[in-house]
Parts: sequence; structure tokens; C-alpha cells
Amino acid sequence: MSLKASELAMVPFVSVDNMMRLVHHIGMEQFMADLAHEIEVDFARWELFDKTPRVGSHSDVGVIELMPTSDGTLYGFKYVNGHPKNTKEGLQTVTAFGVLSEVDTGYPILFSEMTVLTALRTAAMSAVATRHLANPDAKVMAMIGNGAQSEFQCIAQKAVNGVDTIRLYDIDPAATEKCAKNLDAAGLTLIPCATPEDAIEGAGIITTATADKDMQTILTDNMVGSGVHINAIGGDCPGKTELHRDIVARSAVFTEYTPQTRIEGEIQQMAPDHPVTELWEVITGAAQGRTNGAAITLFDGVGFAIEDFSALRYVHEKIKDTPFYIDFDLIADPDDPRDLFGMVKRAG
Amino acid sequence: MSLKASELAMVPFVSVDNMMRLVHHIGMEQFMADLAHEIEVDFARWELFDKTPRVGSHSDVGVIELMPTSDGTLYGFKYVNGHPKNTKEGLQTVTAFGVLSEVDTGYPILFSEMTVLTALRTAAMSAVATRHLANPDAKVMAMIGNGAQSEFQCIAQKAVNGVDTIRLYDIDPAATEKCAKNLDAAGLTLIPCATPEDAIEGAGIITTATADKDMQTILTDNMVGSGVHINAIGGDCPGKTELHRDIVARSAVFTEYTPQTRIEGEIQQMAPDHPVTELWEVITGAAQGRTNGAAITLFDGVGFAIEDFSALRYVHEKIKDTPFYIDFDLIADPDDPRDLFGMVKRAG
Repeated sequence: MSLKASELAMVPFVSVDNMMRLVHHIGMEQFMADLAHEIEVDFARWELFDKTPRVGSHSDVGVIELMPTSDGTLYGFKYVNGHPKNTKEGLQTVTAFGVLSEVDTGYPILFSEMTVLTALRTAAMSAVATRHLANPDAKVMAMIGNGAQSEFQCIAQKAVNGVDTIRLYDIDPAATEKCAKNLDAAGLTLIPCATPEDAIEGAGIITTATADKDMQTILTDNMVGSGVHINAIGGDCPGKTELHRDIVARSAVFTEYTPQTRIEGEIQQMAPDHPVTELWEVITGAAQGRTNGAAITLFDGVGFAIEDFSALRYVHEKIKDTPFYIDFDLIADPDDPRDLFGMVKRAG
Repeated sequence: MSLKASELAMVPFVSVDNMMRLVHHIGMEQFMADLAHEIEVDFARWELFDKTPRVGSHSDVGVIELMPTSDGTLYGFKYVNGHPKNTKEGLQTVTAFGVLSEVDTGYPILFSEMTVLTALRTAAMSAVATRHLANPDAKVMAMIGNGAQSEFQCIAQKAVNGVDTIRLYDIDPAATEKCAKNLDAAGLTLIPCATPEDAIEGAGIITTATADKDMQTILTDNMVGSGVHINAIGGDCPGKTELHRDIVARSAVFTEYTPQTRIEGEIQQMAPDHPVTELWEVITGAAQGRTNGAAITLFDGVGFAIEDFSALRYVHEKIKDTPFYIDFDLIADPDDPRDLFGMVKRAG
């Protein structure tokens, strides 16, 4: 399975600009549908993966994390930062990049921006959870929090689950306006709402993607009716939640990788043994998802390394025979591998 | 300290080719001397650093590791693989790259190849240890193991410690021949030797850099005389050592980061509480290095994240106003940081 050294010396690099070109080349809805498929493929072989908790470096103002995983054939990791105060400085709260490597040689085979790609895979992940947990006739979604993630969430739900109507709410009306404008040609019916109560009216799917680093109660218990599926994706670090604990208590809770979710997700509000089901178990049929039409299902999404792995694997496959990457000599390739010095010397 | 978004959207990338150009631009001896200085600067403020054990992903044929660290202002990590069987396939046993980021924003500020850079910093590290531990009149070094690391070790010892004579030995005479040929214009007196006993004759410094993944005894106890300083840098993973334990027992042992060295270094052969001194303590004066001229000092080098951090910091500084990098749009930079989707949409 190893390639020749001369081929492996060059690593394809996908910049932000090329990632955007690739998305438009494939079509964003198709890209989302494909990503959802790749995530399902990897979740279905969950037990194969080497699962490590993310490795964080914390400061007063944010965190830088490395998220590695491997399926035994390929190895991937993502670098991602989280700096809520960045927005005020005109910077991204979250930026990311990732690398895919060959386990057999340890050689990298893809280096890619992942700020855009993470937004896409996060949306695809919510759509996968929704496909397996929501009532099948749910075509109206309340989108609570209309920031950087929101439009991607809406497009993915349309592409994967046929959602046709979005009820938008944000504490900042300008965010809702931006979201609606961005989605004006997306083929969705968009309904800006003045209150969260209004937004969830008649919605079979509720997705919350709010960003403040505090214990929030975006939704309170009496707001959430029976039969609803909730994707809570904004609460993704210790001390940051979005839902009142009574909603969590009433819901059937589904996680990605539970040891991480207990620290970062909505269930950090609950007892350490609060019952949850991992989504891969639902996908493989090992566990039941929704038990009846009236149940409330909650996908407590925090983002996990395997989703990034799926996304990198997909991009690696899709850039072949396209102009959407540059080759970069990241690997030293001396004629004789024991003669690294000779290579450096001869370059002089 | 934050830069403007437009500046931060682009990250400088240093390829293998550009790293080699930078080395020749600065001069390899100067580069080594500078790296040794930067390592000393960082070791002198050791307690500031966030020190995490490396995060490894192991397979039957090798390991892929991430080595992060931070001084509170900058964050760096290195990706490095170790695949001993790669050499037979015409590939590098070790390849590496690294990233330096700003802690305040989480934004990367440098992406660099580190296969060449790791060889340079490993040699600079040995030279730093030698400067602080060897007898000051030691100008003859035995270089045991004449593979990919050997020439770098010799150049660093000349640049930092004024070593003028190298006694070369390798189990494979072709490796010795290659090493001697590579160093023919380095200004060193080179003495190829037929046996390890011959190589260490009259050497005040012994550096071992052998690569087999087994418990080796390159040096046995009766070979090593009083007053010698040993750099044992080839034993750097569990099950891989180079020295007979009796030599270790007779030596004053110095480490980089002891929790890691106890797993990976020569001292994995010793009791878990075998006394050692961390090199940063010698550099700051908090602990004594060599106690007398007859002592045997042993630098049990395995490589630590702070050395990579020093090297990345140095390269980041040195590439300024040079042509030895390319700018790469790794960071998504929307006009409005909450409008990532709008940026993607407008790229269509």
C-alpha cells in the first residue's frame, strides 16, 4: 500500500480558497450529503477506531486543541482553537486545519484548512443525528442562534433530511437578517421569529447553535413539546451549555463519544452516570434511537475526531484530478534515506 | 499583540527545499550555534512551559506522535512518525513537521517542515548538553552510529564546543564512509575506526546514535573510562536502548523531561526512582552538572517538545524578509467573523 518515495515527498495542500472552490465544484448540498454518508460509514465501524480524548492547551482567553484518531489504515488529526473574544477583534472564534496520514509509513498524504470544512462536517453530523432520531415527517426546523454555523446547519438539513422550512431566532436581530439573506436562494422557506417561543412553534427539529461561554438556558422546559428532536451543538466546552437541565432530563440523550460529552456537552449538568446512547450504536442497529413518536430526542453534539477524519478522507478522495490543491514538499526525500545530511549539503 | 486579520489569514509555510536554503543562507554552523542558544533560552525558563507527554498512535510497524507545548505566549507542536522499516522501502524512518501559534488568538503563525529541522535541533541539543557537562578540554568525539543523524551531531559539536576531531564507527563500514565523505570539507579531523573500542580511544565525548529497535549494548562497561561525557541519543522509545546498564549505573545521568525519559531513554533499564538531574536545572544553576574531572556524565537524550518549540521560534524569526517561505491562506478570513457562510457563498 506504500507509494514510492518520490510521490510521497509531495503532500497536497488545500487552502481556504481551494476548499471553497471544491465546495462549489461539488455543490454544497451534494458535499453535505456526501459528508453525512462518510460520517455514517465511519460511525458504523466505530470500534475499529483509536479514540483519544482531545489534547488541550488552555489559556485565560481560549484553548488550542489537537484531536487525533486512526482507523488502523489512515491517521488524522485536527488542530482547532476556540477563542470567544476573537470576534470582537475581527477574528474567527474557531479556526482549524487538519492532516491525514498513512499508518503504514507515517507519511502525511493531505494537509487541509478545516475552518470551512469543520462548519460543513458539523452541519453534516447534525443532519446524520437528525436522520436517525427525528420523526421522519419533521420538515420544519427551528434554528436558534444565527451565527457562523447556522446557514450550514440549514443547508445540511435540507440536503440530508428534506427539511423545507426554517424558523430563525437570534438574540441579535442582525444575525437573523444575515442568516436569512445568506439563505435567500437556498430553496428554503425562511421565517424570522422575534422570540425563541415563536421559533419552535410547529418545529419537529430544533437546532441550537449559540456561542456564549456561560451556562445558558436558551430553551426552558415548558417550551419543548413532545415528539421533537433537538440538536444542541453550541454547548461544547466545560461551563458552556444551552438547555435547561429539565429538558435534558426529559429527553432520550444521544452522544458521539460519551467520555468527551460528559465533560463538554449538555450532560455536564447531569449526574456522571446519566443514561445516554452513543449514536454509532443507533446507526449500526445495536441500540434503539427514537422509541415512539412522542419522545423527545436530544443529540448532545460536541464534535469528535472521527467526524474530522471522515471529512479529511472525503476531501482527500475528491481533490484527485482537480486543480483544488497545490503540491508542497513537506517530506525530505534523500536518494538514500540514511543520507539526510548529504541532501542538505548538496542543496547548498 | 494581535495582528490584523488580513495579516493573520496568511500563514508562512517553509518547505524542505526552503529549509535547506535557509540553512545555507545562515550557514549550518551558525544555525546550530543559534539553535543551541535558543534551546538554552527556553530551558532557562523551563517552569513557564506547559509540558504534556507526547500523544502517540501506535501500529505494528511504527508510531505517529504529536508533541505540543506552550510558554503562555506561543504554542507549538510537532507531528513526527517513527517507522524503522521505512528505510528498506526507500523512505525516511522519521519525518516531521510543526506549527507555531499565537496563544492570544489561537492563530497559527508558522507551518514548517521539521524532518531537516529536527536533525538540526537534535544535534544542537546534544551540543548544549555537552557544553554544560563535558570536561571543557574535550575536543575529540567518538561518533558511534554513522547514520542520518551523525553528521549533524559532528557539525553542532564543532560549532558549539570547538570539537576538532571525530572518531567514527558504525557496524556498517559504508555508513562510516558516507559520513566521512559528507564531512570532508567541514574542517574536522576524521578518523574512521574498525571497532567501537578503537573509536572511543582518547575521546572525551562519546555520542551514540544507533537506530535498531532493540536493547543494544553498543558500549559495555569496561569500554568507558573516567572523565568521559556520553550523549546517548539513539535510544528513544520503549525497548530501545544503546548502553549497558552498568554504564548508566556508573554515570551521573541528565535528562530533558524525566517522566518521558523514564519510558523512552536509557534509564528505562534502571529502577523507576534512579536518580537523575534535569538539564534545565544545570543550565539555570539550580543543580550541579559535572562534579569532578573524573566523573562520567550521561545525557540520556530522547528529544522533547520544548526543543522543537525553540527551533520553530528561531525559524519564524529568521525567515522574516527572506524568500524562504510561501504565504498560504490557511485561515478563513471573512469580513464579518460571524459570516463564514457568506464568505463561502460569495466565492461561488
